[in-house]
Amino acid sequence: MPLTPDLERIAARAAEVAPAWAATEPKQRAQALVAIADALMTASESLVVLGMEETGLAEARLNGELKRTAVQLRLFADEVVDGRYLDVRIDEADPDFALGVRPDVRRYRIPVGPVLNFAASNFPFAFSVAGGDTAAALAAGCPVIVKAHPGHPRLSVETARVIADALVDAGAPDGVIQLISGQQAGVDMLKDPRIKAGSFTGSIRVGRMLADIAAARPTPIPFYGELGSVNPAFATRAGLAASADAIVEGFITSVAQSAGQLCTKPGFLFVPSGNQLSEPIATATDAIAEHRLLNAGTTVGYRDRRDAILGTPGVTVIAEGDVRVDDEGNGWATPTIVSLPTSVLREHQESLLDEAFGPLSIVVEYDDESELAPLAAELFEGNLTGTVHAARGENTPELRELVEWMSQSTGRVLFGGWPTGVTVTPAMQHGGPWPATTNDSSTSVGTAAIGRFLRPVAYQGAPQDLLPAPLRDDNPWCVPQQRNLAGKSQSWGTRAVR
Amino acid sequence: MPLTPDLERIAARAAEVAPAWAATEPKQRAQALVAIADALMTASESLVVLGMEETGLAEARLNGELKRTAVQLRLFADEVVDGRYLDVRIDEADPDFALGVRPDVRRYRIPVGPVLNFAASNFPFAFSVAGGDTAAALAAGCPVIVKAHPGHPRLSVETARVIADALVDAGAPDGVIQLISGQQAGVDMLKDPRIKAGSFTGSIRVGRMLADIAAARPTPIPFYGELGSVNPAFATRAGLAASADAIVEGFITSVAQSAGQLCTKPGFLFVPSGNQLSEPIATATDAIAEHRLLNAGTTVGYRDRRDAILGTPGVTVIAEGDVRVDDEGNGWATPTIVSLPTSVLREHQESLLDEAFGPLSIVVEYDDESELAPLAAELFEGNLTGTVHAARGENTPELRELVEWMSQSTGRVLFGGWPTGVTVTPAMQHGGPWPATTNDSSTSVGTAAIGRFLRPVAYQGAPQDLLPAPLRDDNPWCVPQQRNLAGKSQSWGTRAVR
Repeated sequence: MPLTPDLERIAARAAEVAPAWAATEPKQRAQALVAIADALMTASESLVVLGMEETGLAEARLNGELKRTAVQLRLFADEVVDGRYLDVRIDEADPDFALGVRPDVRRYRIPVGPVLNFAASNFPFAFSVAGGDTAAALAAGCPVIVKAHPGHPRLSVETARVIADALVDAGAPDGVIQLISGQQAGVDMLKDPRIKAGSFTGSIRVGRMLADIAAARPTPIPFYGELGSVNPAFATRAGLAASADAIVEGFITSVAQSAGQLCTKPGFLFVPSGNQLSEPIATATDAIAEHRLLNAGTTVGYRDRRDAILGTPGVTVIAEGDVRVDDEGNGWATPTIVSLPTSVLREHQESLLDEAFGPLSIVVEYDDESELAPLAAELFEGNLTGTVHAARGENTPELRELVEWMSQSTGRVLFGGWPTGVTVTPAMQHGGPWPATTNDSSTSVGTAAIGRFLRPVAYQGAPQDLLPAPLRDDNPWCVPQQRNLAGKSQSWGTRAVR
Repeated sequence: MPLTPDLERIAARAAEVAPAWAATEPKQRAQALVAIADALMTASESLVVLGMEETGLAEARLNGELKRTAVQLRLFADEVVDGRYLDVRIDEADPDFALGVRPDVRRYRIPVGPVLNFAASNFPFAFSVAGGDTAAALAAGCPVIVKAHPGHPRLSVETARVIADALVDAGAPDGVIQLISGQQAGVDMLKDPRIKAGSFTGSIRVGRMLADIAAARPTPIPFYGELGSVNPAFATRAGLAASADAIVEGFITSVAQSAGQLCTKPGFLFVPSGNQLSEPIATATDAIAEHRLLNAGTTVGYRDRRDAILGTPGVTVIAEGDVRVDDEGNGWATPTIVSLPTSVLREHQESLLDEAFGPLSIVVEYDDESELAPLAAELFEGNLTGTVHAARGENTPELRELVEWMSQSTGRVLFGGWPTGVTVTPAMQHGGPWPATTNDSSTSVGTAAIGRFLRPVAYQGAPQDLLPAPLRDDNPWCVPQQRNLAGKSQSWGTRAVR
């Protein structure tokens, strides 16, 4: 089916501006990213007001999220100027090469072309129009088409306008960022051959549908979807003994913030049996004010999951909380915390294990730490995060086994602390094995995300004047070049046996 | 459908040994790779004899290919010890971080787990049991199951035995490499949840089928398929004038070697009209001895493609060549070279554009260099390579436009030389946009291939004694660690505007 005239114009525009945006010099592209950050902060007041109206998220949270979004753009600006992300490798021509004369070969990474980014509902800034995937794709040199989330349509339009204006003012071609709306428009655009990569943050159901579409295209494209995660947390017996109060406080804060509508909300907290946590958890939970839910779909989904969990035999309610719909149709919730022994979790996996997107978490009581890693391996699929609360200096075989399971099954392993509030830094990994993501070889937060939107190309035997700037000997962009000298290949393998 | 008992045992074994192989220290893993290289060279005589029998490839070619395979393993051994591939990033804890207190975050890349590698027919060493994907996966720390190519079954078994023995002798757990046979076994194994990545070298038809299976699994996995490529080469008018003899000689050598059964064989050579190449091309082609084809399937496929091309209206035969089947059922061929104007190529795309896997190439005569880039963009999908033969110092807008098209549509852009004989070096890129590969974000030749079999994981707030070795401050493996210091985030973005 052909695109509608509007979508056709947008796809054509993205393809048309791709070469010019890809060819921008690092400083110019970096300055454009900084200009976007500045423009977002300048417009912050009106953007945050719109966000509050459309999402029900709190002012402080949205201000923090917008600042994070701007800092993220500045971080990518530095990454672009730094140039390590290009992974420049230069093999000198080598007449003495072990396999016969080696030509001069130079390799770097180029932008893939237009990217389609499906915005999330729960981060109207940081995972939406101006979010991480947009920042990474723009930094890589790719035009971006954002499919707006229907949960914040006006904010999406306004954010796109701020970005587009800032880009044009910074000298970028008009059309480096464009916005589309509607589920069918997103699907149709994802099938268009001019789109070279897709990114997404949302549910397993929708993410899988889109990933399947991307894979089934006549020309398949990479699709980076962040889907569902229950983020199990584990307190050892010694860890709980040392810090019960802090664990309870941190746990409830992490579950309750933004009404638990965070992909990294801890959905399970494993604690030793015989603990005295019910009362402090109930007390801490009761102190949490009611919070609006993002939209009608979220409210229905959360109520259904909560009902299923509360209706499961063997579940004990620690803090019942509530979920209600007001006269204007907005959902509101206070946190619900339940507890159960491992046997109940094992017996009722079908009702207990799926993500509850909202302020609900399950406290699981175990008898012995040696159960934890095997139980986790048995029950959990891939997750964005895994958290352990151990005592200072604790280093038992059971703890090491649990940490090993977390490293194999999640994208981020936390010691102490809580998985919500993902920091934006070079070393951050926000991803994880299916169904946490559709592709666990990359991240959607942190500078490494730029690699999603690059592919390598090599030049062999090229004259200097026909090489792209990063591959030239005079290195006009001053990027790191990994040079592999001639005459070394006869000794390959000797580092291993030295 | 459950696996057969044999396949079940193999999958279970791969999963069982994965943690131990992943945990090998760099030197030990590197020594095991060198041990494989040594063992292959020690067994070279018998392996090459087997290869000659089963594939019809020449002794010199197979000796060269085996040496290349051993050198590749040694290169990966050094890569493992070097440790840059781990991409270690350490963010120091930062109380002054721009978005609030930043925890200590450390990220590196870990092996994905068992890899299923589908061997190719045309490189019984370099893209088969001991080939590039096996070397990269073993280097990454992943156990490998190779699905043998039916074209060289005994060589596959013997090579696997040599590798397995060398690995065990080097202290690796038994089962780090295993072999399976049969199409259905390959498909069934690809669907097994214990397999974490797939790789393949072969036809578009089979590669697409396998890629679709990998994407449709309940838990999708990355699938790195190298499929089809026609590798267009272009001689400018000045380039041809300067080096006609060398171009003809290099072209025919590249088309004819290994009976053209190479994924990088130049399938098209664009030359200016009015050239005098027919006679020298015919003379050079006539001097090529008949060469056996790999197997019955290759013979049938090549004969069909050759018939279709020879039967296309407007095609002029420069060197007719031959393809025949001997009494033992082996196919034999001498090169076929045809020529045609661009108009014929445009008019009969359906019969002319598909890869002819064998010693056939099409000389396309153009009138003006300004035609080349637009024509290439119109006709060709993704390719592994693009080649240009220009005169020394030539740098016209038409040439730059052609180079730009090549960089966008291929994985390797060659200036002079020919795409066959891919050198194994850190900067090599062997890949390219669909249908050259199913995934153009990586390479199947060169050290960067190790990235196919790794995924990132971050540790947040971890005590030193629970960190993996590459992330520890004392850095016992001496790997490069990119440290991001505290106190810098307030100035992010300022590099762009300095």
